[in-house]
Amino acid sequence: VPHHRLQIDQPVSVGLCTITGEEAHHAARVKRVAVGESVEVLDGRGGVGRGSVSALHKDRAGWTVDVTVESASVAERPLPALEVCSAIPKGAKLSEVIDGLAQVGAAAWRPLEAARSVREHWRPEKLECVAAEASKQCGRAWRMEIGTAITFGEASNGAEVIVADASGECFNGTGDAARLLVGPEGGWTGEELEQARAAGTRICRFGVHTMRIETAAIVAAGIIMNRPR
Amino acid sequence: VPHHRLQIDQPVSVGLCTITGEEAHHAARVKRVAVGESVEVLDGRGGVGRGSVSALHKDRAGWTVDVTVESASVAERPLPALEVCSAIPKGAKLSEVIDGLAQVGAAAWRPLEAARSVREHWRPEKLECVAAEASKQCGRAWRMEIGTAITFGEASNGAEVIVADASGECFNGTGDAARLLVGPEGGWTGEELEQARAAGTRICRFGVHTMRIETAAIVAAGIIMNRPR
Repeated sequence: VPHHRLQIDQPVSVGLCTITGEEAHHAARVKRVAVGESVEVLDGRGGVGRGSVSALHKDRAGWTVDVTVESASVAERPLPALEVCSAIPKGAKLSEVIDGLAQVGAAAWRPLEAARSVREHWRPEKLECVAAEASKQCGRAWRMEIGTAITFGEASNGAEVIVADASGECFNGTGDAARLLVGPEGGWTGEELEQARAAGTRICRFGVHTMRIETAAIVAAGIIMNRPR
Repeated sequence: VPHHRLQIDQPVSVGLCTITGEEAHHAARVKRVAVGESVEVLDGRGGVGRGSVSALHKDRAGWTVDVTVESASVAERPLPALEVCSAIPKGAKLSEVIDGLAQVGAAAWRPLEAARSVREHWRPEKLECVAAEASKQCGRAWRMEIGTAITFGEASNGAEVIVADASGECFNGTGDAARLLVGPEGGWTGEELEQARAAGTRICRFGVHTMRIETAAIVAAGIIMNRPR
């Protein structure tokens, strides 16, 4: 059984680590960690600490969980550092995108404003929670960033950009990839694709069928992160 | 805007195609297709027909939708013909697996009985509906099969089998792949991995982090279906 993982705000280091707030509450009441139990602490910046719970305490300010970190290490950042810019899918599907991208190792997600994007309300704080929860579950040492909105024009301009589209070549794992663009349900407009082609941006397909935003974003990012190097 | 797609039971051929039952009801009442509207019909065996609705009719037996098919073609079957055998995730996540696998182009899914598999109730008919719905949405011409349960011992024996596990080599796209095994939340047991290694079965990892069953199955299948050939 894998250890419980706790997210901390301060950089991981050997010694006493005091956790308060929501994370301490969650550890004490939902995960029900016990004194003496082995846990892992993650700072979201590569730091991974292993140790055990040395004290649990509740007062009027809430729960405090003390962890004695016995060993600390720094995990390598997964490469490429991939920024995924996608149109926002409807309803609860956006959380699915963030959850899946965190698991496949994307570095960041940003909402993409394409011509056919639907205006959907989204809360960065909620997505950061989803990313943090997924990161703890899959042992991810580097936080996934939730970035600000970017237009197709800005996002598609660059040497290491890949636009996902059925009209493109099959992605073959060559070349550097730093940003992946995934379009809205209605697809890119002809103008957008022309603009990307004119700028020399790579257009790649990542499967035989048209995928929905959430599947396309997660699968294409997984393929890019897993390319042979 | 893409055309509505309708699933039919008989092989696609040019001429009149009469659709009844649940599919006709769905087309008439949910998709609200109209007489004269362009539609695509799919028989799930590679047949793709293009035509238009020539009549809509309702009687005591329910809805009938007549489509006049003007052109018919046979789509190539996506290769490799990949059978994904996965442990059953909890709750609604199984539908997510089937939906995603249909989109990435897997040929079949079967429930895998591994040592740490949790017994979950599943209904093949429901999963076939999920696969059919996803197939229509993504324009998939070949039905995804929902197969019978298979044990790890049976499933891991074969030349073109890949066992997904963090301990394996990074999947590099070489070799034939006909079956992918994805383990339960608790992972494979040491005995299972030893058994697979002893049989010469490939063990591959498909990402930098441990993924949940549903993400692992969809992303690994997507990576295999997208390998350079």
